[in-house]
Amino acid sequence: MSETAFDVLGIGNAIVDILVQTEDDFLDENGLTKGSMALTSAEEQTALYEKTGQAIESSGGSAANTMAGIAALGSRAAFAGRVKDDQLGRVFMHDIRAAGVTFDSPAAEDGPSTATCLVLISPDGQRTMQTYLGACVNFAPADLSLDQVAASEVTYLEGYLWDSDSAREAFFAAAKAAHDAGRKVSLSLSDPFCVDRHRDGFLEFCREHVDILFANEDEILSLYQCDSIDAAAAEVKDLVETAALTRSAEGSLIVSGADRIAVPAAPVEKVIDTTGAGDAYAAGFLAALTQGRDHKTAAQLGGLLAALIIQQIGARPSAGVQHLLSGLDD
Amino acid sequence: MSETAFDVLGIGNAIVDILVQTEDDFLDENGLTKGSMALTSAEEQTALYEKTGQAIESSGGSAANTMAGIAALGSRAAFAGRVKDDQLGRVFMHDIRAAGVTFDSPAAEDGPSTATCLVLISPDGQRTMQTYLGACVNFAPADLSLDQVAASEVTYLEGYLWDSDSAREAFFAAAKAAHDAGRKVSLSLSDPFCVDRHRDGFLEFCREHVDILFANEDEILSLYQCDSIDAAAAEVKDLVETAALTRSAEGSLIVSGADRIAVPAAPVEKVIDTTGAGDAYAAGFLAALTQGRDHKTAAQLGGLLAALIIQQIGARPSAGVQHLLSGLDD
Repeated sequence: MSETAFDVLGIGNAIVDILVQTEDDFLDENGLTKGSMALTSAEEQTALYEKTGQAIESSGGSAANTMAGIAALGSRAAFAGRVKDDQLGRVFMHDIRAAGVTFDSPAAEDGPSTATCLVLISPDGQRTMQTYLGACVNFAPADLSLDQVAASEVTYLEGYLWDSDSAREAFFAAAKAAHDAGRKVSLSLSDPFCVDRHRDGFLEFCREHVDILFANEDEILSLYQCDSIDAAAAEVKDLVETAALTRSAEGSLIVSGADRIAVPAAPVEKVIDTTGAGDAYAAGFLAALTQGRDHKTAAQLGGLLAALIIQQIGARPSAGVQHLLSGLDD
Repeated sequence: MSETAFDVLGIGNAIVDILVQTEDDFLDENGLTKGSMALTSAEEQTALYEKTGQAIESSGGSAANTMAGIAALGSRAAFAGRVKDDQLGRVFMHDIRAAGVTFDSPAAEDGPSTATCLVLISPDGQRTMQTYLGACVNFAPADLSLDQVAASEVTYLEGYLWDSDSAREAFFAAAKAAHDAGRKVSLSLSDPFCVDRHRDGFLEFCREHVDILFANEDEILSLYQCDSIDAAAAEVKDLVETAALTRSAEGSLIVSGADRIAVPAAPVEKVIDTTGAGDAYAAGFLAALTQGRDHKTAAQLGGLLAALIIQQIGARPSAGVQHLLSGLDD
């Protein structure tokens, strides 16, 4: 097999987050389901935004956050996603490159503006998201470099992309190119509501194309419409080569063939903002894996990075996390 | 005198800050003077931005920060400034209103984009700023409601506006309207380099129009080209009714006629980001003053809010500072 140019190529929505602290009453008053991600129109998002307090803006996007985490951990990451050439698109492009991630997708000259996600952070650190997909909706196979896919050890796909028909086509093209080149394909299920929207599609895609699956407990239970992690683990072992199932404070469970490895969560003093916890876990897991470490170490590194991210505002590590892996033994 | 609609109306540059953590070496390599604010073109700012790490965006602008602080302290604040109707302009408008500040200036439909300030935060918390003034450059008397000026107990002017000819005209118009209505005029000197650019203009404007002057030590020494705060205080007592001179860790000195009141700084555990320290001081001072408190209490409240702001990232209080004033006795 030829040399790889990247450890992981992420494909996902290119989004700028608008982060606002809020009370749970505000969620109730506006009919929002705490902890969920919902898609909205620009108008709906603006109407909600006008009711919120002072915000800060910070680059986001699930797979983009994961790639930033992978780069921060010293691995080679690339990202493909679609922004418009507008102020927030330039913010996204700056930040993903500043994180050390290769980003070659050209910005759209016209069409919808760069995607924004209004992230409402509750006092307990949980986040409720309203996403306007904007330019992301038009992500298509043409936005993808199949050479880049073939040159990446793992191609990591964000489940949220499934909400766009053309992005889904890019998914299939990427998965085929990766496997043709003898590489691995990874998928994150992203969100239980997303799974609910696309259950059959996800199951079929996983069966045929996915090697490494990431899902939190709500997502995997939604995928199998069952109510125990044991039942879900029994199903998922035949679906993909490796499944990393995250369970918040209960750590994570790695299912790989007949093996099940439970890894406890890393200690957390105070949860500030859970935005990006799952993204960070995937970053740690894939960074360790592509550096030749075993599943247990990968799950530990995922847990460490997730613990770090939920104790700060925002979804990407600021700097100085490379030491995390060196402290772990296989 | 008729009832006021606002305690303080601020007039200043409407800016979105781009906040980046940086090392001091980066400042040296790029020929930047640590702690200063310099004006740049959009191109120069972009060239520097491309070299920086991941950033977050947060509404800023000196007088706008002060108005947000005044509103957070429970006083009635309004702001006049000029944004373009673009993504960052909408961010600015959202945040100033979300802070509880009345903002009626219409957004420009064309012309330069909304102003951005690249804020480089050093490990010791000092900030070095590169500002692209954008839409602010065209701030003019027409952007100002003289009725709003006349209905505000204090009109607070940001010295930075002096860099634009049309904004300076608005300054004079506002000062005249305020005094015609029997109100007070306040000015912040903003930055020692700004003072250096406009020394004679500032001196004349103060002499004729300013009641309450805010300056830090560097600014007041620059204004009088002297090297001791005592010498500056002796001069400034004949220039304005009240001067609030801030001295970082040494607290502040209030000069009012023959009176000099020195107020120690509030305790600070760890300086995170000094962005907005002077703005916050002015907010506390003016909020207390317009609530009928004396100079000493005003200086104490200014010090408390400044101490709070430098222990967080960003220049505006997030929430919950109304209690600060109730703890102070006149």
